[in-house]
Amino acid sequence: MKTFFTLALFMLCHTASAQIIYSPSGVMRAEFKLTDRGEPSYSLFLGKKEVIKPCKLGLVLKDAPSFTEGFTVLRTDTSTYFEVWQPVWGEVRNITNHYRELAVKLHQAQSNVNLTIRFRLFNDGLAFRYEFPEQPQLTYFIVVDELTEFQLTGDHKAFWIPGDYDSNEYPYSITNLSQVDATIADRHTEIGVRSPIGKKFVQTPLLLNTDGGMYINIHEAALVNYPAMQLQVKDNALLMSHLVPDAVGNKAYLQTPFQTPWRTILASYKATDLLASKTILNLNEPSKIANPEWIKPQKFLGVWWEMHVGLATWNYANQSNIALKNTDWKSLTPNGTHGATTLNTKRYIDFAAEHGFDGVLVEGWNVGWEDWFGKWKEDVFDFVTPYPDFDLAELKNYAHDRGVKLIMHHETSGSVTNYERKLDEAIHLMKSYHYPAVKTGYVGKIIPRGEHHDGQWMVNHYLRVADKLANNQLMVDAHEPVRPTGLHRTYPNWMASEAARGNEFNAWSVGNPPEHETILPFTRLMGGPMDYTPGIFQIKMDFFKPGSPYQVHTTLAKQLALYVTMYSPFQMAADLPESYRARPDAFQFIKDVPVDWDDTRVLLAEPGDYLAIARKAKGKPDWFLGAITDEEKRALPVTFDFLDDRQSYVVTIYGDALDAHWKDNPMAYEIKKFIVNKRSVVKLNLAAGGGAALHIKPASAEENKKVKRYRPD
Amino acid sequence: MKTFFTLALFMLCHTASAQIIYSPSGVMRAEFKLTDRGEPSYSLFLGKKEVIKPCKLGLVLKDAPSFTEGFTVLRTDTSTYFEVWQPVWGEVRNITNHYRELAVKLHQAQSNVNLTIRFRLFNDGLAFRYEFPEQPQLTYFIVVDELTEFQLTGDHKAFWIPGDYDSNEYPYSITNLSQVDATIADRHTEIGVRSPIGKKFVQTPLLLNTDGGMYINIHEAALVNYPAMQLQVKDNALLMSHLVPDAVGNKAYLQTPFQTPWRTILASYKATDLLASKTILNLNEPSKIANPEWIKPQKFLGVWWEMHVGLATWNYANQSNIALKNTDWKSLTPNGTHGATTLNTKRYIDFAAEHGFDGVLVEGWNVGWEDWFGKWKEDVFDFVTPYPDFDLAELKNYAHDRGVKLIMHHETSGSVTNYERKLDEAIHLMKSYHYPAVKTGYVGKIIPRGEHHDGQWMVNHYLRVADKLANNQLMVDAHEPVRPTGLHRTYPNWMASEAARGNEFNAWSVGNPPEHETILPFTRLMGGPMDYTPGIFQIKMDFFKPGSPYQVHTTLAKQLALYVTMYSPFQMAADLPESYRARPDAFQFIKDVPVDWDDTRVLLAEPGDYLAIARKAKGKPDWFLGAITDEEKRALPVTFDFLDDRQSYVVTIYGDALDAHWKDNPMAYEIKKFIVNKRSVVKLNLAAGGGAALHIKPASAEENKKVKRYRPD
Repeated sequence: MKTFFTLALFMLCHTASAQIIYSPSGVMRAEFKLTDRGEPSYSLFLGKKEVIKPCKLGLVLKDAPSFTEGFTVLRTDTSTYFEVWQPVWGEVRNITNHYRELAVKLHQAQSNVNLTIRFRLFNDGLAFRYEFPEQPQLTYFIVVDELTEFQLTGDHKAFWIPGDYDSNEYPYSITNLSQVDATIADRHTEIGVRSPIGKKFVQTPLLLNTDGGMYINIHEAALVNYPAMQLQVKDNALLMSHLVPDAVGNKAYLQTPFQTPWRTILASYKATDLLASKTILNLNEPSKIANPEWIKPQKFLGVWWEMHVGLATWNYANQSNIALKNTDWKSLTPNGTHGATTLNTKRYIDFAAEHGFDGVLVEGWNVGWEDWFGKWKEDVFDFVTPYPDFDLAELKNYAHDRGVKLIMHHETSGSVTNYERKLDEAIHLMKSYHYPAVKTGYVGKIIPRGEHHDGQWMVNHYLRVADKLANNQLMVDAHEPVRPTGLHRTYPNWMASEAARGNEFNAWSVGNPPEHETILPFTRLMGGPMDYTPGIFQIKMDFFKPGSPYQVHTTLAKQLALYVTMYSPFQMAADLPESYRARPDAFQFIKDVPVDWDDTRVLLAEPGDYLAIARKAKGKPDWFLGAITDEEKRALPVTFDFLDDRQSYVVTIYGDALDAHWKDNPMAYEIKKFIVNKRSVVKLNLAAGGGAALHIKPASAEENKKVKRYRPD
Repeated sequence: MKTFFTLALFMLCHTASAQIIYSPSGVMRAEFKLTDRGEPSYSLFLGKKEVIKPCKLGLVLKDAPSFTEGFTVLRTDTSTYFEVWQPVWGEVRNITNHYRELAVKLHQAQSNVNLTIRFRLFNDGLAFRYEFPEQPQLTYFIVVDELTEFQLTGDHKAFWIPGDYDSNEYPYSITNLSQVDATIADRHTEIGVRSPIGKKFVQTPLLLNTDGGMYINIHEAALVNYPAMQLQVKDNALLMSHLVPDAVGNKAYLQTPFQTPWRTILASYKATDLLASKTILNLNEPSKIANPEWIKPQKFLGVWWEMHVGLATWNYANQSNIALKNTDWKSLTPNGTHGATTLNTKRYIDFAAEHGFDGVLVEGWNVGWEDWFGKWKEDVFDFVTPYPDFDLAELKNYAHDRGVKLIMHHETSGSVTNYERKLDEAIHLMKSYHYPAVKTGYVGKIIPRGEHHDGQWMVNHYLRVADKLANNQLMVDAHEPVRPTGLHRTYPNWMASEAARGNEFNAWSVGNPPEHETILPFTRLMGGPMDYTPGIFQIKMDFFKPGSPYQVHTTLAKQLALYVTMYSPFQMAADLPESYRARPDAFQFIKDVPVDWDDTRVLLAEPGDYLAIARKAKGKPDWFLGAITDEEKRALPVTFDFLDDRQSYVVTIYGDALDAHWKDNPMAYEIKKFIVNKRSVVKLNLAAGGGAALHIKPASAEENKKVKRYRPD
């Protein structure tokens, strides 16, 4: 059910005085005004506290250098919007979209151009965008800079990653803004492609925490046909938008009517409320997919982790010099370590079928992996030719007979021109062999050369792929794309993205510190689901490679908790079947945990420290709860007041063993069952780098008798 | 029949002394040696006269700055090659490929890289290229500069156009090298997209004429996976290669084994011999098309010239702001001037059928023309959606019933990413509607932005399109591509290119001076056929647009002669049907002239002045002769010794009337018939800017009686 109320519409002409709006509850206040020089400016309050001090808005257009000032207000319109809508999939069944809107219609004298700045003020944040209506004076134009400012009230604590045109796969730093030093990017040689911008540049979503205890998240929503916004830290408290440039240094090629993405500022004194915000999603357009029955959230396994841990390879042969077109693949000498063989894939299909998984991702199935990386090579992959030991037709039937679907993989190596020219053929193959979804990858410097992962051209590419796949009833999970901005509302076949430092970094690098997963939900995940690939049971890599110093920086129990804390409708059980076979009791949680939800409650949250989230399974009375901590051991009391008070529940707690520790004893877990109810307060003992995963389901009469009640220590 | 003789193979190790080879007849001599610093160098003689004085060869590789010196010779191989091969179509039935080869295998100490420089010395010129064999030390590499020098013997007269990364549509300048001033490029605002390089840069094919009467042509052959070579004029007599850069300033991304295109230096004291050279063609690889029966040279009409003269428009509606995806084309208000309507196309089909033409090109049939030009807009055209007034299915049947084929048109506006991602779909449409060929167009700044028409990426694109079309048995005629380098030997479905200043410039700009067509065969056409679109009968544009100052800068008779002098297997009869209906006697020549030949004789030639070429129709005894002049009126005596001496011939001379003049009286022609034989010497009186077109066929007994013998005045 969708409801639309326009409660009011005002018109105010030619006023130079400030325009003030309040959020629906009145808790937030935003103000627009023109400076003496006719520059647009704004400010934002949460209650009586300033969030953003008065600061400027503006764009620099090519061939119109004066466009930053000399504006007059033609007209302002305010209105209120309220709707409740249902996502195709999501963390909650119903989403409320409620805001107060102010549209300021401006005219710039020298260029004779009209510009509208539209503000939407929600109870948890402000969004605004620049709109260029169709007008005789302006049709095609080029944006060379955006001058949006975010003037903060002080030198806040920031959770940041270095500004970079090509990578968002950095671990987070937590420093005051004045201490931001993004040259640490230079150290992260484990990242495939980096283009750090400079010392004082950071990325969004940026999380800030003020001395006064306010949490602020700065990001953008509905990034369409525009480059990603990064932020330059100036004077310790001023953030300035910095758009990712194209190959010739321009930012965006535009045609009226056009609106930029929304710039978003979420603010709350409660970290839990920030996490529950649906404002970024609400700022996106409704779904363009009319009949989305074919879109299915799912759990999947993959011929994948075995490559990361070094047991297998993506490539079929060991050659460092392959010409895609001229190679007779059958004539190559197999290296004996190729992961994506028919036989091995069948092993995964069998395991998936046995344990009720929907899909099996297979990477390395198609030719080109021998020399795919780091060459800036254009003709690197095709997306239709399997290696000689991978039988598409046989696997299609084998999977079908067992009720499993294979998930396609399209690694582009960043050669996107190559991918785009072959996409029609690739889609044809997917449809022919009944693949429902594809994981795309962009590990490499972009071709067209000079373009960046986060520039306008690539932003358009990701969406073009999502759109084209939607037209073919195919789902997509994009790896190494620009970070999400809520576009999964509009394209609900865009199930997930990576777009941050995922779990695989733990397999072969310094990895992700224990706090990493307590920060991601406040930053990267604000824009949309992440395919983080949780579920690693075999924590230390020396199990696979004797002497390896690498490990996952969590306990096993925390890996289970991530299925709840790291929301995604596309969740991988990333470890090897053998790892799961060795611990069937723990694996049971992965089998049971859903990927689509009726409700979500953020119970406890402190970015960089800990997190506890409860979610109700879609269409079922079961709840699942995930709690995680950073490198500190903690006892977290979680309340169960989300439960139905008419009954009792059995909670199965997959928790850290008493002596567990992410480094010293990461795989020690224990599984306990208790009877709980709405009034229970369960203390979860999380080891250092640990977590707990809870499955809470209505207790049967027998369980009510047999299972002991939960009692606090 | 193909014959291959390897006459000799020598091996010479570790020698620092010069390597000398002679051409098969001994007329040319080339020398290779290393300088004292280990730099490769070469020189070239024609007879006893130096063509190229000793000068350097070299490439600069990224991350290997020392690669220009420190070479040692590992080994040299010499051999002789002789073959006679038959092109799928061409100027002659048999082509002799005869050269002496020298391969110098070099080693560069610091980089530990092996490089072969291969020379092929023909009787009319030298070619050489750089080859990087597969080797452990080098797999992927980037060329950042090429240092090939052409050290001439003096400040020669040059026929040049400005060096430019994006356009070759300039008129020629004739100056000594010391007087080259390519800043004249700035004046040519009639050219859609220009990127002139600088004052002393010119393009190839460059024609030079020495004080000693030698003609030299510098160009390249087999331009594959490499940027075009332009030339920097240094010190008045030194030409230095200058490669077209990519978006980030690199020149070429390469993978071993790789060979650069051939750098070619043709030299002769006879301008006629230079024109007859097949060396550039011979340097290309044999045809990749195994069964070329579907490749058909042809003459065609087009819904085209009427747009250039202003009678019709490519666009259907007058809107300056169109979004391709969101436009309901049927809802637009037609402008009433759209050329590509079903009705108008039928008119051309009827005319083509009546007069025996093979094809009808239709431009402006597909949506997107409203705002296609000059916007650097990516989503500009699709290649499958016709305007509402163009009925693909109806026209397919209408053309088929009349034995005519429509020719497809794909204007990209330079948005090549857009074209490539839609090419599969576009080809599918072509096949569905029985189009045998496509004219492509690249009028606009290239997207990927920062790339250029003549850079490696685009060079690969043109060939990718030719290759993909070949796989679908489709022919291509590329407009605004890089200039040809003989690749039509390898891809004989690549029928023609524009790649120079074509006839249409006469319709709406200062146009092409009368000398233009006497230079093109020595320059642009050395690389391959040009779709020059001759056959304009209505010479002055004020016929269509009263007051127009524009006109074709030739007489009507010269337009006929161009069908012989401007070789192409794809020849347009470019004017309107009405223009031809008004002059059926002159039109008869266009109807009769073939587009494929058994033999060609260049009778007279002086670049910039005049030209007379005779060609024998493929599989027929008929000969055709074209003679043209520049702005000077001339009487050219042409000998007929190419005729079979066992019989007499009727020659029909389509010549300038006595009072004809390109400016004052361009449409005055007269048609005469005579009996001629092998011993005849016919004086052709060419008006200023005029020409003559001759059809020579065996005389019947009756003609021998009735037609008068030719007598000199």
